Amino acid sequence: MKKLLTTLCALMPLFGIAQAQEFTPEQLEQVKNVREQALKSNLSWQLLESLTTEVGPRMPGSENDKKAVKWAQQQFKTLGFDKVWTEPATFPHWRRHHEAGSIVTPSKQPLRLTALGNSVGTPAQGITAPVVMFNTFDELIAAPKNSLEDKIAFVNYRMKRHIDGNGYGPAVRARRSGAVEAAKKGAIGYMMRSVSTGHHRFAHTGASGYQAGISKIPNTAISNPDADQLERLINGGHEVAVNMNIQTEDLGEGTSYNVIGEITGSQFPEQYVLIGGHLDSWDLGTGALDDGAGVALTMAAAKHISEIAQPKRSIRVVLFAAEELGLWGAKAYFKRHAEQLDNIVAAAESDFGADVVYAFESNVAANALPVVKAIAQQLAPLNIEYVNANNAHGGPDLIPLNQVTNAPIFALHQNGTDYFDYHHTADDTLDKVDPRKLKQNTAAYAVFAIMAANAKTKLTGKGK
Amino acid sequence: MKKLLTTLCALMPLFGIAQAQEFTPEQLEQVKNVREQALKSNLSWQLLESLTTEVGPRMPGSENDKKAVKWAQQQFKTLGFDKVWTEPATFPHWRRHHEAGSIVTPSKQPLRLTALGNSVGTPAQGITAPVVMFNTFDELIAAPKNSLEDKIAFVNYRMKRHIDGNGYGPAVRARRSGAVEAAKKGAIGYMMRSVSTGHHRFAHTGASGYQAGISKIPNTAISNPDADQLERLINGGHEVAVNMNIQTEDLGEGTSYNVIGEITGSQFPEQYVLIGGHLDSWDLGTGALDDGAGVALTMAAAKHISEIAQPKRSIRVVLFAAEELGLWGAKAYFKRHAEQLDNIVAAAESDFGADVVYAFESNVAANALPVVKAIAQQLAPLNIEYVNANNAHGGPDLIPLNQVTNAPIFALHQNGTDYFDYHHTADDTLDKVDPRKLKQNTAAYAVFAIMAANAKTKLTGKGK
Repeated sequence: MKKLLTTLCALMPLFGIAQAQEFTPEQLEQVKNVREQALKSNLSWQLLESLTTEVGPRMPGSENDKKAVKWAQQQFKTLGFDKVWTEPATFPHWRRHHEAGSIVTPSKQPLRLTALGNSVGTPAQGITAPVVMFNTFDELIAAPKNSLEDKIAFVNYRMKRHIDGNGYGPAVRARRSGAVEAAKKGAIGYMMRSVSTGHHRFAHTGASGYQAGISKIPNTAISNPDADQLERLINGGHEVAVNMNIQTEDLGEGTSYNVIGEITGSQFPEQYVLIGGHLDSWDLGTGALDDGAGVALTMAAAKHISEIAQPKRSIRVVLFAAEELGLWGAKAYFKRHAEQLDNIVAAAESDFGADVVYAFESNVAANALPVVKAIAQQLAPLNIEYVNANNAHGGPDLIPLNQVTNAPIFALHQNGTDYFDYHHTADDTLDKVDPRKLKQNTAAYAVFAIMAANAKTKLTGKGK
Repeated sequence: MKKLLTTLCALMPLFGIAQAQEFTPEQLEQVKNVREQALKSNLSWQLLESLTTEVGPRMPGSENDKKAVKWAQQQFKTLGFDKVWTEPATFPHWRRHHEAGSIVTPSKQPLRLTALGNSVGTPAQGITAPVVMFNTFDELIAAPKNSLEDKIAFVNYRMKRHIDGNGYGPAVRARRSGAVEAAKKGAIGYMMRSVSTGHHRFAHTGASGYQAGISKIPNTAISNPDADQLERLINGGHEVAVNMNIQTEDLGEGTSYNVIGEITGSQFPEQYVLIGGHLDSWDLGTGALDDGAGVALTMAAAKHISEIAQPKRSIRVVLFAAEELGLWGAKAYFKRHAEQLDNIVAAAESDFGADVVYAFESNVAANALPVVKAIAQQLAPLNIEYVNANNAHGGPDLIPLNQVTNAPIFALHQNGTDYFDYHHTADDTLDKVDPRKLKQNTAAYAVFAIMAANAKTKLTGKGK
């Protein structure tokens, strides 16, 4: 009998040992309960439905953005969070008024285009000019000086589809600074194939910028089918001219608010697990995938934890402001809390839609890895794989945190295969979210957050 | 040996007997060759790509419509059709200039709407009014008199998805005369959930009408996600007001042209198989599925026949004008040829997209059924099932023919499961057509047309 027990102990996986060292049986029972509760509950869906329906699009600085801030405070209070507060963030306030486009030569055809964020407008009748096509952004960069005078530059690069969205980086360069490079060559307008994996006729907006000393030219993206059409016409030997008409407004500095709700810890209340998403959205859709889902599921995850038991450390849900225009809420948050960043024992942002979480990854100091593995074991019943690389990058709103310190960052990787079909389009609406998948996401965040909050070992990052 | 032969003959299926009676072995070899040639050739795709790219949208009466008429004549000539000509058709010329919509209460949100064909416009600033929702068109009809004064009526009926598109009929009632019924109750605007099975944010346009003596009110459709949003707000107890702004123009009587290409028969040139589609399209997309595909595949099918051998009877490809606004080209065609309708030995229109043809059905006199079965046998290698009901309805442009006589009508049923995801939207573009499926369609029409043209028995309809 003794021999049998010894053998059993030898066979006990490392995970089991870590669990036993870091968590009491009662705490592990709580994890199971919170997971099951999150999988059963409709709360995250109800929050998402309410935000996207009653508020709708939430462009930073808009009336709806103000409504969203009130909505979030009210919801946190209704859900019984211990502390609810806001913190201001400023950002460059930009607004889209009107957009339209057409091919005018060789045949009159509408173009589905959208102004990129921060773009200047055109004159009232738009600008009409011949199009010069580049297959990649680098081809545009390599174009001779003055070669685009009185032309509209068109970058026709196609984003690649991938489960982790790794096609985004190579594609987004042409959005962030395409208009700058085009203007350097003398172009009077810029148009790009959307940063998109979709095959529907939606143009994808997104942040873009200008450079001091370089002419600001109107900056647009067209849908994939429209880009296909331009490509066919140009490759067919036609001279193609287009009209782009965008009316936009630069409203100077705007102010919005990070909205924060906290479930206060019983033992180390100043230490906290940071989860959240961003409350703002682009104006075209209703921001269901980007990032209503992240808002709703992290709020719900913390609520489910509070229903089971008060955690040892606090759970802080931060709903960041003005992410889309340049992470302005996140910059303000981490600047404001710069002296207390060590209080963050774990941070994870959900900002990649609402498809299933398929993998879990950490970025922590070595002594924290047993806790990570214990969390991974409790995520496994949700069909989440453990990525044993300890090199996670967090969501975009954690970038300003990463820039000052290597904090204990976690990634709950969502399946992003379809995410860029909808990202930043009019088609980012509630019906694109699968309620069952949203529950799985909610459960994953709840399991992660309760365990990071309750672990015996305080989690820390790798540091600078 | 004799006994064996007798047994074999007894076992020979009816189809084989019909084939042998109606077609020579050489003719059956031609059928096989034309089928194989159509499955190999890119011709139908090339025609579709050219029409949708170089011409684009083809709204009746537009400059592009004129271009399409020239394009079709030129293509027929280039392909070596024996006769190419046009026949005029008049129609009520209508044009869309601008459309926009928004929810204004309880929260400002854009609405993706489109003006229905023939709709009057709104004042320049649009009309803003509270919305009254009806779950079905019949609920609107049942509403009390004057109950909609100063309101916008919203019919929220959801079209059903079906392989044969049978959800269209029940749904389209609310499009054809919704504005009339709403105006009868005092409404100042009409808005309907699109006749759509899609879940993307496209509004579906389509023909609509007014009634003498009833006020003409602006007439619009919104996308399914937008209708969902209105429904959630209204069912959530909110008072909802919307703004609809459509700028349209009634240009009086317009003229366009049916374009006709014929492969002349060797033995009975005056008798002909009529195949075709409609050359016009709505203005929002490029009319790839509706009905560039029908145009391209019937042109290509006739061309492939002409490459194999001159048929006994003529093959006439009719590209009808102004179908979308009310079958005006078809009405003109069958009126003009009213005295020679007996020359039509078979008629089939392709106007249901470009998914695979999965079934074949006739509507002919009893003595023509052996030929029908022989055709079915040669369609079987294309995975096309024979529907032994002899009750086919043709495409929409054959309706005016059916109204005067029971002509020999055929249906090559396309899989329409997804057709109403794209129908009459901006998203009806070339990328929605699968080149391999288009080839199968082309082969099916080629096999059908060559056999109907060469059969020993002249096919006739059931008559009046």
